Amino acid sequence: MEGSSVFFIEQNLLPFEFRIAEALTFTACCHAIRTMQVRGAGAIGAMAGFAMAQAFTEAFFRDDPALPARARTEIGSTRPTARNLFHAVEKVYSAGLRSAKEAVAEALAIADKDAEDSRRIGEYGNQLIRDGYRIETHCNAGWLAFVDYGTALSPVYLAHQQGKKVFVYADETRPRSQGARLTAWELNQAGIPHAIIPDNAGAWLMSQGKIDIIITGADRIAANGDTANKIGTFEKAIAARAMGIPFYIASPFSTFDLNCKSGKDIPIEERSQDEVLYMEGPDDKGIIHRIRVASPGSAALNPAFDITPAGYISGIITEKGIIQADEEAIRKVISD
Amino acid sequence: MEGSSVFFIEQNLLPFEFRIAEALTFTACCHAIRTMQVRGAGAIGAMAGFAMAQAFTEAFFRDDPALPARARTEIGSTRPTARNLFHAVEKVYSAGLRSAKEAVAEALAIADKDAEDSRRIGEYGNQLIRDGYRIETHCNAGWLAFVDYGTALSPVYLAHQQGKKVFVYADETRPRSQGARLTAWELNQAGIPHAIIPDNAGAWLMSQGKIDIIITGADRIAANGDTANKIGTFEKAIAARAMGIPFYIASPFSTFDLNCKSGKDIPIEERSQDEVLYMEGPDDKGIIHRIRVASPGSAALNPAFDITPAGYISGIITEKGIIQADEEAIRKVISD
Repeated sequence: MEGSSVFFIEQNLLPFEFRIAEALTFTACCHAIRTMQVRGAGAIGAMAGFAMAQAFTEAFFRDDPALPARARTEIGSTRPTARNLFHAVEKVYSAGLRSAKEAVAEALAIADKDAEDSRRIGEYGNQLIRDGYRIETHCNAGWLAFVDYGTALSPVYLAHQQGKKVFVYADETRPRSQGARLTAWELNQAGIPHAIIPDNAGAWLMSQGKIDIIITGADRIAANGDTANKIGTFEKAIAARAMGIPFYIASPFSTFDLNCKSGKDIPIEERSQDEVLYMEGPDDKGIIHRIRVASPGSAALNPAFDITPAGYISGIITEKGIIQADEEAIRKVISD
Repeated sequence: MEGSSVFFIEQNLLPFEFRIAEALTFTACCHAIRTMQVRGAGAIGAMAGFAMAQAFTEAFFRDDPALPARARTEIGSTRPTARNLFHAVEKVYSAGLRSAKEAVAEALAIADKDAEDSRRIGEYGNQLIRDGYRIETHCNAGWLAFVDYGTALSPVYLAHQQGKKVFVYADETRPRSQGARLTAWELNQAGIPHAIIPDNAGAWLMSQGKIDIIITGADRIAANGDTANKIGTFEKAIAARAMGIPFYIASPFSTFDLNCKSGKDIPIEERSQDEVLYMEGPDDKGIIHRIRVASPGSAALNPAFDITPAGYISGIITEKGIIQADEEAIRKVISD
C-alpha cells in the first residue's frame, strides 16, 4: 500500500506476463480478489486488510461514515472459504473504528506478520526435508500466494538455499492450473528442479516410490484440524495415507478458525463452471486465446476447495512449530 | 473395413467435429493409433486387427511376403499398454498365415465380438445400477472407445434405456480430457444427464455422498486382477475404498493378459509432455487454437496409465458376468 493505493501482482496474467496493477479503491480490491487476480490464503488476507483500510480513507474523503461497514460486508463476500480474508477484515475494521491511520497501520502489520510467519514456517518445515527429497505439492502456496516466502513452498526454498538437493512435483491443479502456471513459474525463478504432473498422476508416482513427502497450504483450518484447501488436496491426502507417505499442511495461525468446530462448518466456494469448460493461454505467437476444452452442451461442477479430515494430516507446519492436527494441540499453541 | 480400407472416427476432432477418415494402408492405421485419432481399448484392438489384415492384402499386391511380419512389429509398437492391440494383432497374424481372406475374416470377427462383448457387459453391469444412481466414470469407455456400446458406459446406456434415472459424473481426465471431450459428448448424444468434474473433485464428491458407484474401463488386466487403465483411475479407486464406495472395472476378456502375473509386468506408456503443457480447442468463433497452459520453461511428466491393484476393485464386469478381481476367479471363467 502506497498512499491510498494498493499495488498487487496480477496473478491471472502469470506465467505469461508479470504485471503490477494498482487498486485505487476498496471496490477495485474486491474485484481483484473475486476474479482471482489476487489469490492464495495470505495474499487474499493482506489484500483484504488493505481494502478495509482503504475504505476508512475513502469514508473520510467522501464524507460517508457508513462506507466502512458496507465495505466490511462487501470485502467479506468476495471469497467464502478463505479464512485469512475475514481475519484481516475484522482486525482492520476494529482498528479503523479508532482512526483511519490505525486501520492502515493494522493492515501493514498484518502483511508484515504474514511474511514473517511464512519465513518461520520455512524454518520449521525445512526440518522435515532431507537431502534428495522429492516433494509433491498441490496448487500454489508459494510467495505469490502470500506476502512473501509462501507456506508449502517456504521450506522448499530454504532447503534449496541450504544446498539440499530437492525435486518438486507440482500438481497441475485443475481447473485453474495454479500448479502448472504459478508454482512452476516460482520454482523456475528460483532455479529449483521440478516437473508439472497431471493431478491424476499423484497416486501412481507415490506407488512407484517417487514421492518422499507431500506439503500443501490451507485456506481455512477448523478447531479440530480439518483443513479446507484447493480441490484435490483431499485426494492426495487419501493416496498418501494408503501409500504411507507423510502428508503435511503448512499454514500460519491466521488461517485457523476456531469458530469452526470441524470441516463441516467451513463453507465451500462453488465457482463458475466456465473455469472447467474453458482455458486461456498464448499460442506460439504469444497471442492469448480462450478456448473450449469440453464438449459443447455439457455442464460442469466446480467446487473450489475440499476438506481434508484431520486424521489424514501428518502435521501442520505453523510459525510456532510443527503441531499435530488435533484440537488439543491447536488450542494449546494458540493460547500460548 | 470396406475393400482394403479401414474407416474410423477421428476422435481427436471430437467433440467439435465429427469426421470419418479412411486409412488406406496399415501404416496409416498405425499413425491413427499412435496419434490417438483412434483410442480406447476395444477400438484400438479392432483397428489393430484390421491393420494386420490390411498388411496381408498389401503383401499380396506388392508381392512382398515379408511385409506382414514387419507390420506385426510396427502395429505392436504403436501403444505399449493396450492389451487388445496385441491380442488382435496375434489372432489376425495367425489367420493371415493361412490366407489374406482369413485375416480379414478374423479381423471382422474380432470387431463383431468386441461389440457383442460390450453389449453383454452392459447387461451384467446394469444389474449393479439402481434407479437414481449417480455414477462416476474416468476417461472414456463408451462406444467411441470400442466397436459399439462401450464397457464402463454400456451398463449406463442400458439402465437409461430401461427408464432408470441415472446421473453421470464424468471425470475430465487430464491431460487428454477424454472425459470432458468424449464421455460428455457421448452422454449428450444419448440424452443422459451428466456433469463434467475436474479430476480433483472425485474424492470430495464421494465424501459428500454424491457418488453411488464408480465404473471405469481397462487397458490391460493382469492374471491377478491388477488393472492398467487411464492415469488417475488408481486415485479414484483409493478414494472409493476410503469412502466405502463400490469401484468396478468393466472389461471384456480380450483385455485380460494372463502372461502378466501382476500389474508389475504391465508396461506403462509415457507420452509426450506436450500433452500436459498445451491444449487445443476452438475459440468462440470456432477457430481451433493450440495454447500453452503451463509456465514456459517448465517440463512435465505424462504417464498415460496407472495400475490399480486388484484389492481395490469390487469386481470386474465381463461379457461372462461380474467376477472377483483375483487369479482363481479369472482363470476359472477364462477356462470355462
